Formats: sequence, C-alpha cells, structure tokens
Amino acid sequence: MKHLIEPLDFTIEEYEKLFSLVDDIIAKPEEFSHFCDNKLLASLFFEPSTRTRLSFETAMERLGGKVIGFSDAGVSSSTKGETLADTIRVIENYADICAMRHPKEGAALLASKVVKNMPIINAGDGGHEHPTQTLADLITIRHYKGRFDNLTIGFCGDLKFGRTIHSLARALNRYKNVKFIFISPEELKMPEVFKQNIKKENYKETDSLVDVIGDLDILYMSRVQKERFVSSDEYERLKDFFILDREKLKHAKDDMIILHPLPRVNEIAPEVDSDERAVYFQQTKFGMFGRMALIITLLEAKND
Amino acid sequence: MKHLIEPLDFTIEEYEKLFSLVDDIIAKPEEFSHFCDNKLLASLFFEPSTRTRLSFETAMERLGGKVIGFSDAGVSSSTKGETLADTIRVIENYADICAMRHPKEGAALLASKVVKNMPIINAGDGGHEHPTQTLADLITIRHYKGRFDNLTIGFCGDLKFGRTIHSLARALNRYKNVKFIFISPEELKMPEVFKQNIKKENYKETDSLVDVIGDLDILYMSRVQKERFVSSDEYERLKDFFILDREKLKHAKDDMIILHPLPRVNEIAPEVDSDERAVYFQQTKFGMFGRMALIITLLEAKND
Amino acid sequence: MKHLIEPLDFTIEEYEKLFSLVDDIIAKPEEFSHFCDNKLLASLFFEPSTRTRLSFETAMERLGGKVIGFSDAGVSSSTKGETLADTIRVIENYADICAMRHPKEGAALLASKVVKNMPIINAGDGGHEHPTQTLADLITIRHYKGRFDNLTIGFCGDLKFGRTIHSLARALNRYKNVKFIFISPEELKMPEVFKQNIKKENYKETDSLVDVIGDLDILYMSRVQKERFVSSDEYERLKDFFILDREKLKHAKDDMIILHPLPRVNEIAPEVDSDERAVYFQQTKFGMFGRMALIITLLEAKND
Repeated sequence: MKHLIEPLDFTIEEYEKLFSLVDDIIAKPEEFSHFCDNKLLASLFFEPSTRTRLSFETAMERLGGKVIGFSDAGVSSSTKGETLADTIRVIENYADICAMRHPKEGAALLASKVVKNMPIINAGDGGHEHPTQTLADLITIRHYKGRFDNLTIGFCGDLKFGRTIHSLARALNRYKNVKFIFISPEELKMPEVFKQNIKKENYKETDSLVDVIGDLDILYMSRVQKERFVSSDEYERLKDFFILDREKLKHAKDDMIILHPLPRVNEIAPEVDSDERAVYFQQTKFGMFGRMALIITLLEAKND
Repeated sequence: MKHLIEPLDFTIEEYEKLFSLVDDIIAKPEEFSHFCDNKLLASLFFEPSTRTRLSFETAMERLGGKVIGFSDAGVSSSTKGETLADTIRVIENYADICAMRHPKEGAALLASKVVKNMPIINAGDGGHEHPTQTLADLITIRHYKGRFDNLTIGFCGDLKFGRTIHSLARALNRYKNVKFIFISPEELKMPEVFKQNIKKENYKETDSLVDVIGDLDILYMSRVQKERFVSSDEYERLKDFFILDREKLKHAKDDMIILHPLPRVNEIAPEVDSDERAVYFQQTKFGMFGRMALIITLLEAKND
Repeated sequence: MKHLIEPLDFTIEEYEKLFSLVDDIIAKPEEFSHFCDNKLLASLFFEPSTRTRLSFETAMERLGGKVIGFSDAGVSSSTKGETLADTIRVIENYADICAMRHPKEGAALLASKVVKNMPIINAGDGGHEHPTQTLADLITIRHYKGRFDNLTIGFCGDLKFGRTIHSLARALNRYKNVKFIFISPEELKMPEVFKQNIKKENYKETDSLVDVIGDLDILYMSRVQKERFVSSDEYERLKDFFILDREKLKHAKDDMIILHPLPRVNEIAPEVDSDERAVYFQQTKFGMFGRMALIITLLEAKND
C-alpha cells in the first residue's frame, strides 16, 4: 500500500505514470466514471479549505465514488479530546481511501503509520507539505511546456512561508537543468534549507520581478501578507514590486505561463486574468484531474 | 446558456414548460432518476439555509446527480480574502451547474457574468431575490388552482422586507386579472416600487386580515419580526392582527389555500396545520420538484 | 412503519433478524450495494458527532443510497426559531429515512410522532438514548461470544451519565442469566432506576476494576470526566482505579473482550490497543454494518 504524504514520495517514473493517466482521463472521462463505484473517500478537513476539499470530492465523485467527511474540526470528535490516531482507526472502518488536512505538521504521516488498509493523501499539514498542489503545478507545467527540464521558473512573493513553493522547488529540482529565480523582499526570502539542495549555478535571488520576468518560462506567484512585515511602511514600500500587472507582463516572454496556488488576493491584478499566459484557473482543473489519477493509483496499489 | 437570477428571467412560456416538466417528474419519477448521472451540482451557501440547500441537493440526487459544496461561509475560501468571482471561476472547473446563496444583493448576477459554461441558480441574494421560492409558490398555486389568472391573493405580514412576497407579486402580475390584497401593519407596508407596476384597480391595502380573508383564493403568510417595530408596545398591539388561527379561518373560502415560504414561527397557529387549506408543507415538496425541473432545463439549455 | 427510538423498541426476535442480516451483509456486501439506489437518508445532526454521523452516512452509501443533511445545528433552520416538528415535516418531503441526533431528550420520539412516511432512527437524544450504539455493542458481543445468555459483563467508569451503558444493560437484561458488575466511584454509580429491573442476584457493585476483572466475559469501558467529581483531589485519588492498562489486563480471562463506545480519552492506555481482547475499533465497524441492516429493515417495514 502506498500513501502520498510529501511530493518526493513518488519517483519521477511514478509521476510519469500519473501524468499519462491524467492524459487518459482528460481524453476519455467516461471510461473512468465508474472506476470508484462502491468506493468511499473520507475527506477529513481538520481545518477549512474549500478549494482543496471540493477538488478531492469532485475527483472522487467524477470517478463514480462517494464521499464522507467533515469540513471543519469543530464538527469532529477531536473536540472531545480524541487523538488523531483513534479518529483514523475509526475512519478506516468506513472508508477505502482518505484525504486529510490538519493544522499540525506531520499529522498525515502519523495517520499513514496507523492505518492498515486505507491509503492516506496529505491535503496539507500545517505549513509543511501540500503534495497534491505540487501535483497540480506539475501537470499544468507539463501541459503547457511539454517538459520539466531546461526550464527557468521564477517564484515570486512570500518564499519564506509558502509551502507550495518549497514543495514545487524540490520536485522540479529532480529534473535536468532547471533554473530557479527567487523573487521576494528580504523578509520573505527562500529559507536556506530549501536552497541547499539546489546547485549554486542553478538559482539566483532578487527583489525585483520586473528585472527578471523576461528570463522566465514559468512565473509562480504567491500572496504577500501584510502581517509578515516588520512595519506597514516597509510593506507599502515593497508590495508593488511583487504585484503582477499588465505593465510588468510586457517584459515577459510570449509563452511564459503564470501559475498561482490560489486563493489570490491582490498580487495579480484582475486585468491579467484575460491574458493567455494566465493559467491559474486552468491549474485548478488540472489539480482535480491529478487527484482523480492519484485516487486510482493508490487504490490500485492497495489491491495489488 | 441560461441562468435563473430573478423570477422574470423566465417568460410565461418558459414557466409553462417548467410546470409541465414538473408534472412529468411527479407522474414518473423513475424516468428522471438517471438524468443527471455523472453530473455535479455545486451547492454554495455563503450563508446558511437548511431548507433551500437540502431542497437543491435532494433535487440533484433524485436526478442521479452528485453534489459538492459548503453550507456556511465560514468554511469557504472567502475568509481568506478571495473575491466571489475567483471562487466561481474555480468552482466552474469542478461542477456542471451551481446553486448559490449569498448575503450580498447581486452576488448571483455577478457569478452569472463570470462563468463561461456553468448555469447559475440564485438561491437567495440578501434581501433581493429568491426565484426558486417563487417557482415553488407558482407550482403550488397551479397545482391547487389550475390557473394563474382571475385569482385574488392576499399577502399578509411583513411586506416591506419579505423578498419572496415581492418576487411572487411581480411574477403573478404578468397574468390576467390578478387581484392583490396587501395586509400589513403600517410599518411593514408593501414598498412603492413593487406597487407601481400593478394597476391601481388591481390592488388594495389593509391592516386587518379578518376583514379581507373571505375574498381570497390564496393567502400568503409571512413572518412578522418583533425587531421590525419601533416599540414592543406597538408590536404587542398589532401582532394578533397578522396571526392566522382557526377562528380567522372560519371567514375564509372553502377552497382558499394557505402558503408560507417557511420557516414559520408563530404567525400560523399549529391548529391550522391540520386544515386542508394549509398547503405550506406540500409547498416545500413542490419546491423540490421545481428545482428538479429547473436543473434539467438549465443543463439542457447549456448543451444546446 | 417502524422507528428505532430506544433499544427496547425491537424485540429479541427482531434483533435476531437484524443480526442475521448483518451476517449476510458481511458475507456478501456486493449483494446489498444497490439496495438503496434512488433512496435518500436525511442525516440531521443538531449537535455534532463525527463518528455516529459518518457511520450512518457510510452505511447508506454502501447500500447505494444518497445522503442529505447537516452536521451542526448552527447551519439548520432551528436558528431561525423553527420548531423541530416543522423541520421534520419539511425533511419528510425530501428523504426516505432519517437519522437524527438532538441535544434534547425525547426529540427523536417527537419526530416519530410527526412523520407520516419517513422512519426515524434516534442517533442520540441528549443524555437519554442512543440505540444504534447498543446495536453496535450487541453485534460485537454476538460476534465474539456467539451468545447473549450466561455472560458476565462489567461496566466500568461513569455509570451515572453513560447513556450507552444504561441502554446496553437494559438490552442484555432481557437475556437469560446475564450477570452485571458495575465498577465505578461512588459519585458515578449506576442510578437506581436502571438497577431495579435487574434481579438482585444478577448484579453487584464495586469501585475496583482489578478486583473483578477476572470474572468478566466482557469489559465495557467508559470515560470518567474530571468535571463530574466534587473535587479534583477526589478525581486524582480515584481515576487510576478506572483506567485499563496492561497490568490490570493480566488478571483478565484470555477470551474476555473489551468494548468502548468511543471516543476514548485516557481511560484505556494505548498499550492495550494491540491486545487481541481489545475490540473497540472493530466495534465501530460492526456499528456501521448494524446501521446498514437497520436501514434495510426500516425501509422494508415502510413498504409493507
């Protein structure tokens, strides 16, 4: 039995299989619409996340499966002092596969150690990992770029706390000749721990999006939260450097793609949405297809 | 593609088609139980409403479809500062059709402008519109009265803030020779804007239910909330005038029907429930059938 | 039409039928996976309970049925002042069968008096009854013991407020030669009202688990809540007497089984989980099968 707790739990080859399954699902969705008949997904959201939860539930339902779960820790038994391990042992008696989001780092890993017969998908554990977002990112890149090697990707915004950025950087660093440009204010720089596995010549850091946008094949935007800054003066001085608008886009390549894990607040101006390079809404669709492929793959591994 | 944002979005002819579809569904429900196989309804309740939400979800499930969604803004991404437009663009990647309730007027209209391929049903936007309640009301009237013209309808209670009353009045005013009697305390009178499209000879206003109940073919009751009144003395003095009980019912026609959008608090005495003229619980069943017909109609329009 | 409001609503013979239906479902689940096609369960949780709610929803979905409902009174219309009777009358227009949990004693009974055509299953009404937990308990005992008579069962912990203990004691007291040992601190003794139907020679009371554990065929553990005690000194002095650990288990029979309605806090040490006699997680699985059998039985009774 296999789980997906962090992005590197799957090898490059395993991702390739997932991607080609995604291709099949997109090409012939009706052939998969009964794959999960009589199967149940437990969708356990100990903290709310509409987008991710609905993506998982849609994925399961589009496969013919059904869903049980909760969208909020307030309605779970954990309010009665039950341990996560006990909750999972009970849920395992109900469901065939489980997607869980939890505010504590390592929660999904712990769940995967407890279960005997129910694959666990980490749908976010605190600031730690969110591997199905990485899956969505990779599928989107593959769709528009056709490859993962020989690409230059810029990560822009909050690189310090952005877990989706950390995960994607690690996943892409497994491919050949991927160049990273980290674009952030000093306060929100990419942490050392994530840079140390990248070759020195393969990354650079800057605090100006406009200076580097012309070099990028992919621009991965993220939210810059005011409360991360020491002073609001500092925030006001810097925020515009990290907002993508039509003006800055003029300097970008014609085939650059813009990703964002969403929700977006103001870091991408609405005027950008109609630009063909803006693919962040399609990204959510690829995320849903990725979750379909993942559910199929984990259920098949379980039955082997 | 067609949406239902406000009751007059559908012509009289389009309503007739809906009504005859409702007849078909009631007559042979099993013929429709797979109509929405592999279809997903997004049920987005940015503010809670059990009755309406469960009616939509029942409708979709009775058609063989599935449901994703949330029942409370607290568990939606809007708490992270996401705009409604962004939320809808994401949901459009998941679902085939969407019913939404939102506290802000115009929210459903905005959603309908944003989507490319997902019909929007307004399940209530603030104090503004609630067209599927109007649909339920119309189906109930048609079932018991067999016609919409040459009817006298009394609206009783809070006519100032009662959006279901405003909507139904507009919808019925499109038919011939419909007489309206508006029964309310001075504080809660029907607003001018809703009266100005009705011919002067076709409506009158009163503050006494018992004086006019004998003239009515339909009595539409609504809740009178204490907090709408300037003083609680005024409330105490007036409230009994607008409570329907067995005593007042003695003056009504034998074939008058009593409607109420529910929930009811104390404006209809429980002793009235067993009266054959009380059809407010059947009304919720007609509402569910109406939503089934509506989902079918909007999905068919989308595929045309 | 039949409801399940309290455990004794079913005769011993009716339970036997349920049990043999459970056997069939476990043996051939696929034969039941379409039993509830086109049927809807209303899952109305006016107070949260993940475990019980998900067990019911799993049961219905494993039978091919669908679910509507809410997991929290906050999202129900009762917040608008609607009576329970009105809510149930509306829900009856949507669903085929209803499981409800409510904080008020007698809520499920009231619902069962109001409905015309929807069986009601009490999923807990305040501190009163929780008959499907009793069903889960009975199925588990039958599975591991093969009989209900000639058994000695120890109930340990909070016997004063533990509704699942009261219900199971009443249910088992219908069988021959069942001996009860009530193990609790003075403050949390089994109330007189529940003892008076048991023959004097068939029960005894003690405040020491270790003294009696060797006599037991079944040990039913429950939570001892600190706030039930007059002083925290008293709690500290007594709590260890009612905690099950590996040390105390040494004195138990090899084929004793340990039950617990869950959630468990600290009254069973985690080291006990790996003991073969610990069957409290299997118990939740039997609970789910019991609910499947119950839904089938009540829907069949309705159609007769």
